[in-house]
Amino acid sequence: MPAISARGKQMPASPIRKLVPYAEKAKAAGVQIYHLNIGQPDIKTPEVMLNAVRNFNAKVVEYSHSAGNESYRRKLTQYYQKYGIELDYSDILITTGGSEAILFGMMSCLDAGDEVIIPEPLYANYNGFSTAGNIVVKPITATIDQNFALPPIEEFEKVITPRTKAILICNPNNPTGYLYSEDELKTLREIVLKHDLYLFADEVYREFTYDGAQPLSVLSLSGLDQHAVVVDSISKRYSACGARIGALVSRNRELMATALKFAQARLSPPTFGQVLAEAGMEVPDSYFTEVNAEYTRRRNVLVEGLNNLEGVFCPMPKGAFYVVARLPIADSDHFCQWMLESFHYNGKTVMMAPATGFYATPGLGKNEVRLAYVLNEDDLRSALVCLREGLKAYPGRIAATKTPAAQN
Amino acid sequence: MPAISARGKQMPASPIRKLVPYAEKAKAAGVQIYHLNIGQPDIKTPEVMLNAVRNFNAKVVEYSHSAGNESYRRKLTQYYQKYGIELDYSDILITTGGSEAILFGMMSCLDAGDEVIIPEPLYANYNGFSTAGNIVVKPITATIDQNFALPPIEEFEKVITPRTKAILICNPNNPTGYLYSEDELKTLREIVLKHDLYLFADEVYREFTYDGAQPLSVLSLSGLDQHAVVVDSISKRYSACGARIGALVSRNRELMATALKFAQARLSPPTFGQVLAEAGMEVPDSYFTEVNAEYTRRRNVLVEGLNNLEGVFCPMPKGAFYVVARLPIADSDHFCQWMLESFHYNGKTVMMAPATGFYATPGLGKNEVRLAYVLNEDDLRSALVCLREGLKAYPGRIAATKTPAAQN
Repeated sequence: MPAISARGKQMPASPIRKLVPYAEKAKAAGVQIYHLNIGQPDIKTPEVMLNAVRNFNAKVVEYSHSAGNESYRRKLTQYYQKYGIELDYSDILITTGGSEAILFGMMSCLDAGDEVIIPEPLYANYNGFSTAGNIVVKPITATIDQNFALPPIEEFEKVITPRTKAILICNPNNPTGYLYSEDELKTLREIVLKHDLYLFADEVYREFTYDGAQPLSVLSLSGLDQHAVVVDSISKRYSACGARIGALVSRNRELMATALKFAQARLSPPTFGQVLAEAGMEVPDSYFTEVNAEYTRRRNVLVEGLNNLEGVFCPMPKGAFYVVARLPIADSDHFCQWMLESFHYNGKTVMMAPATGFYATPGLGKNEVRLAYVLNEDDLRSALVCLREGLKAYPGRIAATKTPAAQN
Repeated sequence: MPAISARGKQMPASPIRKLVPYAEKAKAAGVQIYHLNIGQPDIKTPEVMLNAVRNFNAKVVEYSHSAGNESYRRKLTQYYQKYGIELDYSDILITTGGSEAILFGMMSCLDAGDEVIIPEPLYANYNGFSTAGNIVVKPITATIDQNFALPPIEEFEKVITPRTKAILICNPNNPTGYLYSEDELKTLREIVLKHDLYLFADEVYREFTYDGAQPLSVLSLSGLDQHAVVVDSISKRYSACGARIGALVSRNRELMATALKFAQARLSPPTFGQVLAEAGMEVPDSYFTEVNAEYTRRRNVLVEGLNNLEGVFCPMPKGAFYVVARLPIADSDHFCQWMLESFHYNGKTVMMAPATGFYATPGLGKNEVRLAYVLNEDDLRSALVCLREGLKAYPGRIAATKTPAAQN
């Protein structure tokens, strides 16, 4: 039997999805599961977008341009203008989800053996795409006690080598919900200019900032036209994860020309998803106001609820719809699996993502989990009750190791 | 300014799409273009499939399972059964087009520096995906004088090294239209078993075989359960290229488990495309009979028309909807560009794909072009007139170098 590739073996299983078989078993046994493990919002996709797809009237579902439909790319420049970002439509390449934007961006800028610095905890799939491309992830650790703020510049300097080609941030952050400040972004600008690195920013949660905080794109930082590369997506913006429409955005012409070659190899992004996405321009601002208010309430319910549990600590984040919480456990993989396999409270349990999968440094995240607040307040409250009871019943429970830091 | 990656620089531009800027210019100048350069059929997507998308009634466009919707995967087993292929639904992973199936298959089986043997001329994007993954393509050349039949087994043996991990064929073939015989497939079985290699088969043109010829899948060859890997797609089957739905199919469990990890990293295949594809099961056999008859007529018009042109030779293929023709020219890249840039006949011209992009061996294909017979018979006849006049007027025309071999 021929062998599997080494990169195939090293490829990490998704920490968000690897527990799916246990969840399926629990469901088959009649247990109801609160899915806090995955960023699949229950928010409705705007009707105006769904109707655009329903009214699709071409006779042939054709390939689009490899860079995406020009009409959609031109409309996207207006979207970015609302955030004060001036772009030409050719600065935008439509991708199959944000995932493909990460892949094309990384492949265009990094060779096998090259290094990318990423603050951890990090979006797990950065590990996956790096493994696929034989790119080395150099993590620098953000800590829960610092509310997952950007580590100091010295930490970056320490890991920079001649093979370092890029820094990658996710802002607002998945999995921590942390929103980088203007000062932190300027720190990053300083370091990428000093060492001539790319600054990748995954900004797919741009619309999700709370308490009046404003998102700042790396595309808005002066002097970074050749360095800044944004990964974007409509998945969360319009609750349209299944449409698989994202974008790679940069003013660096050579980079965009290179990414286009990768895009040509896969022919085109999905046609129906682009139809849906283009209609997104007609969604009124009130949609975002409402969604934002809803997520603010959910965040408050979840974070306050978590911090009310004995031995649990969770910072109050300003963005996205995730939190990373510290639990009184020593093995989050085991705990999350146990919650599905061996526990239910009144026929209900909670599915969470072990934080271990969000660290590139082995051993970290063992007492942390990621929770997505993608359910309504009532469900979140019920999920918190399940978690409280689960923690009480869990044989692996340990004493809380640290007094929580100030909660923001 | 930070540097582009070496693989990004090496990444080939699509030979099918790289002339697009010249075509756009010609169109802007009012010239009508017959697009024989790209496999974008004008055949209508079946209404029953389009209606399934129009009737999409979920409120949220959610992620699907990373492996695709189970309901669709189960229905696909029935599709393969029609071809005598017995599969479990878990042998099928739904991908974003056949493109992604190639990528996942290659990444799961080959490491950087590993080698894949591919008969050339070959589907250009195999070069692209190989470059992205630092995989080495070892071409063995099929010749137009042999009608692009499989090269003899000795040619394979010559290029096999310890780094050889796979043989990749496209059957029916893009770009040549060649349909491999059972004997040829058995030759391939012999060699992959002898050297313990994967046998990848891109079978996305399965429905397109002519003159009563039947396609034979590598999944039907006995003894290859651990070796055979099929790349599939609905793009051509249902004229639904923009849906971006394909599949990776293999009975090798370890390979499928590995591919699933790559699939998890990109989250899920497109939701709307899967809705469209699943409805494909309701398309009656009469659809394929009609489409097949249509393509048979088109093929006959194109191939006979080409062979009637002075100095032109084109084999009569039994599958897909492409031909590779030899023209009395010395530089197909130049000729195809010239046809768009400097020539029109009564305000019309023809866009073709230079065959150079379909060879991995530098220098080959300079007197060949690929033509897709995706237009109706009248348009094909008009395109042939344009080509005839273009060849007369082309300053780079040379004397035909060879007497055509027997046609078929």
